[in-house]
Parts: sequence; structure tokens; C-alpha cells
Amino acid sequence: MTNKIPVGILGATGTVGQRFIQLLEDHPWFEVAWLAASDRSAGKSYAEAATWRLPTRIPQRVAKLTVNSATPAKDTPKLVFAALDATAAKEIEPKFAEAGCAVVSNSSAFRMAEDVPLVIPEVNADHTALIKTQQWYKKNGGFMVTNPNCSAIGLVLALGPLHHKFGVEKIFVATMQAVSGAGYPGVPSLDIVGNVIPYIANEEPKMEAESRKLLGTLNGNRVTPAETILSAHCNRVAVEDGHTESVSMQLGKTASAEEVIGTWNEFRCTPQKLNLPSAPEQPVYYDPAPDRPQPRLDRDRGRGMSAVVGRLRPCNIFHWRFTVLSHNTIRGAAGAAILNGELLRAQGYLD
Amino acid sequence: MTNKIPVGILGATGTVGQRFIQLLEDHPWFEVAWLAASDRSAGKSYAEAATWRLPTRIPQRVAKLTVNSATPAKDTPKLVFAALDATAAKEIEPKFAEAGCAVVSNSSAFRMAEDVPLVIPEVNADHTALIKTQQWYKKNGGFMVTNPNCSAIGLVLALGPLHHKFGVEKIFVATMQAVSGAGYPGVPSLDIVGNVIPYIANEEPKMEAESRKLLGTLNGNRVTPAETILSAHCNRVAVEDGHTESVSMQLGKTASAEEVIGTWNEFRCTPQKLNLPSAPEQPVYYDPAPDRPQPRLDRDRGRGMSAVVGRLRPCNIFHWRFTVLSHNTIRGAAGAAILNGELLRAQGYLD
Amino acid sequence: MTNKIPVGILGATGTVGQRFIQLLEDHPWFEVAWLAASDRSAGKSYAEAATWRLPTRIPQRVAKLTVNSATPAKDTPKLVFAALDATAAKEIEPKFAEAGCAVVSNSSAFRMAEDVPLVIPEVNADHTALIKTQQWYKKNGGFMVTNPNCSAIGLVLALGPLHHKFGVEKIFVATMQAVSGAGYPGVPSLDIVGNVIPYIANEEPKMEAESRKLLGTLNGNRVTPAETILSAHCNRVAVEDGHTESVSMQLGKTASAEEVIGTWNEFRCTPQKLNLPSAPEQPVYYDPAPDRPQPRLDRDRGRGMSAVVGRLRPCNIFHWRFTVLSHNTIRGAAGAAILNGELLRAQGYLD
Amino acid sequence: MTNKIPVGILGATGTVGQRFIQLLEDHPWFEVAWLAASDRSAGKSYAEAATWRLPTRIPQRVAKLTVNSATPAKDTPKLVFAALDATAAKEIEPKFAEAGCAVVSNSSAFRMAEDVPLVIPEVNADHTALIKTQQWYKKNGGFMVTNPNCSAIGLVLALGPLHHKFGVEKIFVATMQAVSGAGYPGVPSLDIVGNVIPYIANEEPKMEAESRKLLGTLNGNRVTPAETILSAHCNRVAVEDGHTESVSMQLGKTASAEEVIGTWNEFRCTPQKLNLPSAPEQPVYYDPAPDRPQPRLDRDRGRGMSAVVGRLRPCNIFHWRFTVLSHNTIRGAAGAAILNGELLRAQGYLD
Repeated sequence: MTNKIPVGILGATGTVGQRFIQLLEDHPWFEVAWLAASDRSAGKSYAEAATWRLPTRIPQRVAKLTVNSATPAKDTPKLVFAALDATAAKEIEPKFAEAGCAVVSNSSAFRMAEDVPLVIPEVNADHTALIKTQQWYKKNGGFMVTNPNCSAIGLVLALGPLHHKFGVEKIFVATMQAVSGAGYPGVPSLDIVGNVIPYIANEEPKMEAESRKLLGTLNGNRVTPAETILSAHCNRVAVEDGHTESVSMQLGKTASAEEVIGTWNEFRCTPQKLNLPSAPEQPVYYDPAPDRPQPRLDRDRGRGMSAVVGRLRPCNIFHWRFTVLSHNTIRGAAGAAILNGELLRAQGYLD
Repeated sequence: MTNKIPVGILGATGTVGQRFIQLLEDHPWFEVAWLAASDRSAGKSYAEAATWRLPTRIPQRVAKLTVNSATPAKDTPKLVFAALDATAAKEIEPKFAEAGCAVVSNSSAFRMAEDVPLVIPEVNADHTALIKTQQWYKKNGGFMVTNPNCSAIGLVLALGPLHHKFGVEKIFVATMQAVSGAGYPGVPSLDIVGNVIPYIANEEPKMEAESRKLLGTLNGNRVTPAETILSAHCNRVAVEDGHTESVSMQLGKTASAEEVIGTWNEFRCTPQKLNLPSAPEQPVYYDPAPDRPQPRLDRDRGRGMSAVVGRLRPCNIFHWRFTVLSHNTIRGAAGAAILNGELLRAQGYLD
Repeated sequence: MTNKIPVGILGATGTVGQRFIQLLEDHPWFEVAWLAASDRSAGKSYAEAATWRLPTRIPQRVAKLTVNSATPAKDTPKLVFAALDATAAKEIEPKFAEAGCAVVSNSSAFRMAEDVPLVIPEVNADHTALIKTQQWYKKNGGFMVTNPNCSAIGLVLALGPLHHKFGVEKIFVATMQAVSGAGYPGVPSLDIVGNVIPYIANEEPKMEAESRKLLGTLNGNRVTPAETILSAHCNRVAVEDGHTESVSMQLGKTASAEEVIGTWNEFRCTPQKLNLPSAPEQPVYYDPAPDRPQPRLDRDRGRGMSAVVGRLRPCNIFHWRFTVLSHNTIRGAAGAAILNGELLRAQGYLD
Repeated sequence: MTNKIPVGILGATGTVGQRFIQLLEDHPWFEVAWLAASDRSAGKSYAEAATWRLPTRIPQRVAKLTVNSATPAKDTPKLVFAALDATAAKEIEPKFAEAGCAVVSNSSAFRMAEDVPLVIPEVNADHTALIKTQQWYKKNGGFMVTNPNCSAIGLVLALGPLHHKFGVEKIFVATMQAVSGAGYPGVPSLDIVGNVIPYIANEEPKMEAESRKLLGTLNGNRVTPAETILSAHCNRVAVEDGHTESVSMQLGKTASAEEVIGTWNEFRCTPQKLNLPSAPEQPVYYDPAPDRPQPRLDRDRGRGMSAVVGRLRPCNIFHWRFTVLSHNTIRGAAGAAILNGELLRAQGYLD
């Protein structure tokens, strides 16, 4: 065994669970030591339990681990990444926080809870202070931290630096979201081959509310959401990975194209300063080509952890129009949670 | 030979030209009698010249017609449908108007010309009066009429009845457009399989300007564009046919969901009253299902001539959000021009 | 009510069930009068119970019918089309035959049973004689007839006329099958967008065994399978409808390209002679273009009931290579069963 | 400048040219020093001339190189990788060999020429001896070496070790080829979205003839093609990268499944022994999962240089059926040529 910090994964067999395992292979700080999934999988080896759907090979060490049922046990590590669906998360995650675990969750179940930090480390790293208000933390050091929905994360990564500099007042956003965002089996192929589905259940309210919390400010023990108004239109398209979003934006004060683009390209924040292992060197890239970003070509920038922006042009109604893209299962799910885990360690919450 | 009105087709071998021939087969009023294409095709039979790309068979009578070069000739019919690209149209279409032809064009070349009607018969049938101001018409009865861009037509079909009743003040629209809109060979498959292209050259300004002209009002000899402000985001997706559009809309006076939906479903206009052969029974359908319209399932409503609207819900910024879909090569191209031709006949311009 | 023959549909809410309802609308002989599905759907109106996935509208009369549970009842019609999956069919279909129904099934459950006819009316209409050997038939006139797997039907439609003329000895066939063949939700989109799955569970043995039975000969009370040897490779591709198959064929005696193509194009058989309503005018079309048949362009020939063959060229190992295509949910499923129903009526089995 | 061997690239701006540049970045032996493309590109920087279509960034050093016209010049390196289409290759490649260059070509133009080696280093590394019979080589050391068509390479990589051990007598193969194999713009999206094209011009004869030459034996100055008979069916599907092939195989002597699979998994050959930088550790992987290989999941094995085989099962006609997959623009094009270049260096032909 190494000196790395052992981590557990809840929901280890699903698509996001698999991404956790893929991204944590050879992680400099963390090591997958404990896996849990549904009772159907419990007792099997991970290789047996999971239908591995990623193009890289299943890590050999993890393949042999035995899958546990999703209950805190003696050997459950302190740090647990959670990739459960919202219904399961609602029931299971609190049990792990209760048991003293640091639950770093990708689920929507508790994102909007008053005392649960919803965090993108480049945007609102200070919100983790909410941890100290959690009952679990006071009792035994357990707590819960979440990352946003895959549709909100690319948008807010691009809006964050602009909001702090110019204020973001209004956002119209129409998404074209990849099928991997729906998990597996997820979207039936008959619904999406040669088609568009202009609807994703509950996605628009989540995207709007989470963005406001992420851009909000910490006041004492609570986060005051930003006053930014968002109107989201969420669509599903026949893309494997990478959410593309058409955005119109009204700022608090005018900014030139140069200022906006400069703000994006020069943006570095807490994860870059702390040199967190999963932090992209540059969180937001502006691509000046007329027809970028595109999911197939740009989703992997910054090892899937950067947002790529393009097509900045004046809007006839608001100030600016642009397109933003991010990798929905890396920056938009497992990678987001891992970066949160790294932040928590750097901030001392795992000690 | 029948008693039908003979018609010519310019650009007969391209994708829109093929749609003209498909849709005009068994047309009750018109009969394809004359075909023209590039010099490369001239002299060949249509079957030889065209790489037929539609799922229906090439009409046998037309297959045997000889393709002419794109120059007005003695046997060119009075009514000519034009499916040329903009560069060719700019040069060729005026020659046919000059020669006394009624040029019913799908090209963008003259859509925004002051004396050229840009028409959706359900929306602004009266704009054809501009014909009388054209020099050609005064000289020898020749004239030119156009239909809008495939991205504008579904949107304006949905906005038309609302605009006349409530006023449409502001529109945000993000499109997800089918590959057939780019013609053949058009979009390379490497660019679109598993991908989104967030850019279509010149599409956004066209969509915005044409919509304003279509919703505008005829004042004497000129059309005053509507004051509606539009901000368009045009995207290409891996769909064969059918443009899907996410729309946020600010009205001039408030309207309830019931009023908006009622206005759509009850909307009937000139083509329905005149019983034009290609007019859909119902130009706009509202589908109450949460996940409609979808291109694969809804593009063929009203034989591809209806717009289908769905997901009407309040917008956080403007009054309403909704999704609209229309068939881009039928209602958005060849079918639009044929309906214009039918309108012109009913209005007496072909006499 | 009309004078049409009332029919029931088992498994009415699934994709094949929906095709039955679509194809039976305005059928000259049959009228949908009774619907059954799983207990979850029983008691609901069909519109409520089914998630209608076809581009045409749900027929209004059928939408209002109440869905029954899948048990023979007093009002169950004599003729019942069955679109159940194999496990359900195994249990349910015999109950309906037992109750005196003519069960015309699309399921694989009983296709290979010795006394159950497996029929393509153009190929082996005489095999329906097996009905008379069924216990049910002897007791109360109930019986069961099946149509083959969607991958076998296009192939055997093309092979049938050649087999009777030249003998088909060996077949190597590799399929590229549409996702609709797997039903709904069926194939997860993550598995097929930008991908190929070189495997369909149980498909290859079914395709091989069923083809031999279809090409077999009726000897007294039993069908002797053809001696044709088949080697099938079944693949799934990102196509909505239409199975494409690459075939190499060894004949019993040599035949020229002209003879093979002529045999296909001139082939007419029982359904054409009997003028059955769903029979295509021409069951097999040979398309001489170098790059046909293609699913998107050719699947709807003969209203989806014809097979389209192309690329006949010498094989380096067997006599001939070619490509065959057929519509998998029309000719390969619901349309096949309806044509069987029509054949049975014409043969007097429904009297 | 480094001590690396400078290399030139002919046809540097196309899709295969771009792969060369991507794969040669940070190559331990070679360094891109000279670029050539059509006259339209000559004089521009590479960044200006090429429409870079790969998900990785354009290497900064190469981006600044000036593109030359495709004529040998003083600064043309000895080693030149060629990514020209066949027509251009026919004219241009001999000029470079004539000028003393080692032309390592991906084009089909000279693959079947008697004195030109057609090489897969794992299969027939000894065939490079043909170089010594080339007039150019005798005169000034210039020569030409080629790699096979992208459809042949995966197949022959799998067949090679079997052929040497058991003899491969007959092969039926049906391909499902990715769109990137057709270059850019290549296949129009209207032809392939939701579709299959059962035809690729000239592909089948190339695949058959090249496979026989690759499996052939060097006798003195000439290669005697293998007596293996192949019958190929080539299809295009909506996949970005990765050719999937369904194969039936007759061996010279019987071999058990274990022997066949063992032969594949244990196969190592010249490139592995010579430790060539681009050689995959394991050239052929057998995947025991029932539904593999799949292009999206398996094309990148061995950094895109391995073939993945699966579904070995008895064939009803020949001995065995299986599926093979390889990356068509890496192992099937640029990677193949680079490995050939590495082999030539190891064999001393570049000295």
C-alpha cells in the first residue's frame, strides 16, 4: 500500500462511478480503496459488477476490489466520492456524513441545501466554509460538499471571472447536451439517432438555481445567491460527450470584446494557485476560430477540465453572445468532484 | 399534355431542386415542363444529370426531360421556381425576370431587396403587392418573389399570429439545424457525426433581418420591417431534416398560455382560406407533450408544411419560452416556394 | 362499426405493436378492435398507455380504446396479431390459441416449433398447412402462425426465387441492423452513437435456422428444412430503420448476372396473385446503381414491404456477392404478420 | 535543433497529413522539418494552410513552418512521409525517390508495383528487401515503401500470425468503415447520418490484392502473393474512427479456439523485438467479451496501433468466425507509415 489518501466511491459501477475510477488511477494524492454499489453488485469483484464503458482499460488493481453495499462500514475511508442518482443519494449520503465521512457528491439531492456547499473551486472555493455549519461536522467531522449539474458547470466557469469583474445580470442559454449526461442505459438510441430531444427532466430549474448559488457570495454562515437572472433551454443531441451552450449575456457594466476575452484567457484562481492535481492550467480558453468550440474537438482541453469559449459577438438584445463547451462527465461530474476533494484537502478539511 | 400550368425549375439537380420535382409530382395546378441546371448538366436527361437523393423514386416523366442551361429560352414557362445558390441566383434570376418570367426563388440573393416580396403566405400574403413596383413587371410582366431562409420560416410561422395579436417585441432564438439545410455535398460527415457545429456562415444576420421584413407592414410601395428585435444563435446538429429552435419571447402585451396556444392552434390564414393545394390544414400545431417537438417525429406534420410548437412555459427574462420545429427542405425551401407560386396564381399574378 | 374483420393486438404498446396499429389504419379487410398489453397498461386508454414513437399521428379511434390485460376474453377477436417479446409470448400466445384464436405472431418463441408455420407469403405460403396439425386447431380452430426474425426476412425474400430456380447452397451474410430492431428503450444511445456493436444476442442462430425452415419444403405434415448452409455475422449500427446485409452466395447451378437480376425483378408470387392488400407490387427490386441499397433511401420501397437488392458482382469464393436491404419493423415485423394474416384469410383459415 | 532525424511530409494539410504531424510530435527519432502541400498552400505557414481537424492542439513548432510546393528541394530531408491521394502520388512520389528521398507512402498508387514493398512490420518486415531492386536506389539511394489500405491492415495484422502457423486459405470479410477513412471533406453528412453506404470505390479489389501481397513470401527479388482467396464486402457507417470487420476464415490445418486466441495474444514480431518507438506492445488483443471489439471503445488500444479481435466462434462454412477492429487513421494510415519509417531506420535503409 502507498502513502496516498484512501478514498471510497459510492455508486461505483455507473457511468460517473467509472469516470471516478478512471480519473483516480495514478492520482498523486488519492487512491481508490473502497467501492460501494447497489445490493445487486455487493460481494462481486468490481470487474464482475461493472459493465465498463470507457475506452481506457479498467485499472487492474480496482478490478479486483470487492464491491460493498452502500452502508458505512469500519473500513470505509474518510473521503468518499458519491456518484449516486438523486433518489439514492437522498437516503444514502447522509448516512455516510453521519458516520464521519467527507462526502464529495455529484448528486443533485443536496446541492441546494442551505448548509451544503455547492462548489466550483475556480469560482467559489470560499463556500466550503458552510461545512462548519453542518451538524455532522460539529459532531464528528463528517460533512457533505457538492458540485453542480453538468449543464451549469461549463457556463458558470465562463461566467465566474466576468461576474466578479463586470457583474453578470442576465443570461439566456440554450444547451445541446451529450447523451452521456443521462447515464447508462440513459437515452434510448431510437430517441436520439438523427434527432433532437428538446427536453431534459428538471434540468432547466437546476441549471438556473445552481448557477445563482455558485455565483453567490458567502455572508457569515450562508450563501446569498447572485441576482443574475437565467433563462435556460435544455436540449439533448446525438453527441457522446461534451455539452455545447449558446449564451446571450447582459453585464453590469459594459466591457469590450478584448476585456471579456482577456478576462477569460487570463483567469487563474484558487485551484491553479494551490496547484491542485486535477486543476487545468487554464480553466477557460477562448478559441478565436469562427466555428468553435465543438464537442468532438474541444471537450478534452485541459484533460477535460477546461471550458472552451468561442464566437464572442455582440448581441442585439444583451451585451454579448457566445458559445461555451465543457466535458460533461469530466469537468461536469467526476472531475468536478475530484477537484473538490483536492480543494478540501488543501483547505485542511480532510485532516 | 394536360391543362396544368407548365413550370420551369432553375437549379433542378440540387437537393432543393429535387424537392421541387418531388413535391410537384401530381400537383393539381402545376406541371414540371422545363428544367435548367449548370452547363455541366445541360443536354443530359434529368435522370443522368441529377444524383437523386430522396427516398421516393424519381418521377418517370421528369427523368426523361432534357436539362437546359440556365438561360431564358423560347420554351421557358412563365412560372419558374428557382433553387440556385446565392451567387448563381444573383446573376441568373434577373435574366429570367427580364425575359418576362415569374421567378419564385428560394435563394437569399434578392430577399432583402426593397422591391422584392419576401413572403410566407400565412403571414404576409399582401406583400406580393411589391411586385407591381418592379421594373420588370412594368415592362413585360416578369417579376421576382422570394421565400425566407429555412431557419426563419418555422420561427416566423409561429410568431406571425402572435405578432398580429399581441406584438412580438424581442426574440432570443437558438437553432439546432439539420444537415440537409446545407445542400449536397454540404456538411462533411467528419464535422457532424457525434458533434455540433455552433456556426453557420451568414445565417444569423439573415434569420434576424428576414424575420423583421416578414413581420413588417406594407406601406404603399414599401415594407416597413417590424420593430421586433431578434438575437439568433445558429447551430448545426446531426439531424437529416428538420430545424429545432429554442425561443424566448417578449410580447407587446401580456398573453396567457391559453391565449398563446389557442392563437397557434386556431390560426388559419390566406392559404387556408384560398384552399391552396400545398397549404397545410393547420399551419401551426401546439403539441402538449413535455418533450416535443422532435425533428424525427414531427417534421412531416401537414405533409412537412406545418410548424410544430411545444414546451410553452414562462421565461425568467421575457414572457414565454417555447420550442418550434419545421421541415427545412419542405416548409423551409421547396414547399415554401411552391406555396408562394400557388398564392401568386390565386392572386392573379400569373395571368 | 364496419363490416371489416375485427382484430386484436397483443403487446399493443411496444414499438412493433405501434407499427401494427399504424399499418392497420384504413386497412381494407381488418380493423383494430381489441388491445392487450402488460398489467401496468391494462385499464388505461391506448393513448395513455402507449408512448407513441412513430412520426404519423396515433389513430384517433384506436387512441380511445381501452387496453386489456393479456388474457383471452369474451370480446377477444378470432384474429390476434402478437407483438410480445419471446418470454411473454411463450406463456401468453398458447392461451389465445387454446381459446380458439388465430394467433399471428412476430415473436421468436414458437417459430421453430415443428407444427407452427414460419411463413413469408412470397416464399412458402404452402407451409400454412401445418396449421391443420396443431392440437388447438383440431379442438376449436385456434392456431398459431409466425413470421421470421427481421434479419432473416429480407435475405430470404431475395433468396426465395433464386432457391426455387437455381438452388441456394451456401450463404455468408454480415448484417448491419437498425436500432429499431431492438425495440424501445432497446439499445442505449451511449452504445451506438458513433459506434458499431458487433453482436446481437441469439440473432445469428435464429437467422440461420429460420432461413432454412423458410426455404424448406412441406412433406406431408412436416417441413424439411433446406440444406442451405448459412454463416451469419450480426452487427448493430446507428440507423433508425432498415437492415442492410452483405451477402455471398453459392448456387446449386450456375446462373448469369442477367438471370439472377431477372429472377428478382420478375418475381411475383402468392400474395401478388391473390392481390393481398399489404403485398408489394414487386417483392424484390434490383437497383443497378453502384452504391445502393441504402437504408435511408430504400427502406420504404413497396411501402416498406419490398426487399431492395444491389451490387450483384462475382464473388471470389462463391458465385455471387450482393447487398440486400429491407425495412425491419414493416417487412421485418408488423407488416410481415399482417401479410400473413391476409394470406390466412385468403386461404380460408379465418372462416 | 535537435539530433533527431529530420523528416518531410507530402500532403501535410490533409487528414492523414495532420495525423502524421500529431503522431510525430515528441517522436524520439524523427522531427518534422519540412512540409509540402498543393500550390494553393505553398508559401503559407502551416497554421494558415491547414484546417486542423484533430482534438489535440496543432504543435506550435510545426504551426510556424512554411509549407512548400510538392517538389524536391535542397532542404528536403532524406526521409519523406507521403499522404497524397493516389492521382497526385502517381506523379509526385517518383520525383522524390528520383531525388534520392526515402518515400514512405500511405498512397495506393504504387502499392502493387512489383519492386515496391508493401509492408506491415509485424507481418512482412523482410519485404523491404525489394528496395534494393528499385532503379532509384541503385542510382542514388532513393526509394519507395508503402503501407496497405486502412481496411486491409487490421485484417492482415490478425491474419498474419495465423497464416504463418496454420495457413489462411479463404476469407470472407464484410467491413463497416469509419468516415475518416474517406478524408476531408470526404463523405457528405447527408449520405451517412442514420444511414449505411454499401460501397466504397475500388476498396474491395484493393483490400483483396493487398492482403495477398502482404501475406506473400519474398523469393529472391520478388514477392509471391499468398494463395489465400479473399472475398470482401466494403461498407461505410456513421463512425468517426475505427474500421470494424466481420470475418469468416478457412485455415490450412485445423486449429482450436485456444490455439487461435493464444496465437493472437502471444504474437510479437520484428517491431516489438526491435523496440520500434511506435510499435504496440501487443499487436493483436483478443477480447473475450461477447460484444467486442467496438470502434468507440477499442480503437485506441496500443495507442491506436493494435488490432482488437473478438467473438471467435465456429463458422458453419469455414473454420472460424470473428470480428476485428483497428484504428483507420493511426494503424491504418499515418501510424502505419511511421512504423515503416522506424523499421527502415532499424534496417539501415536510411543511413
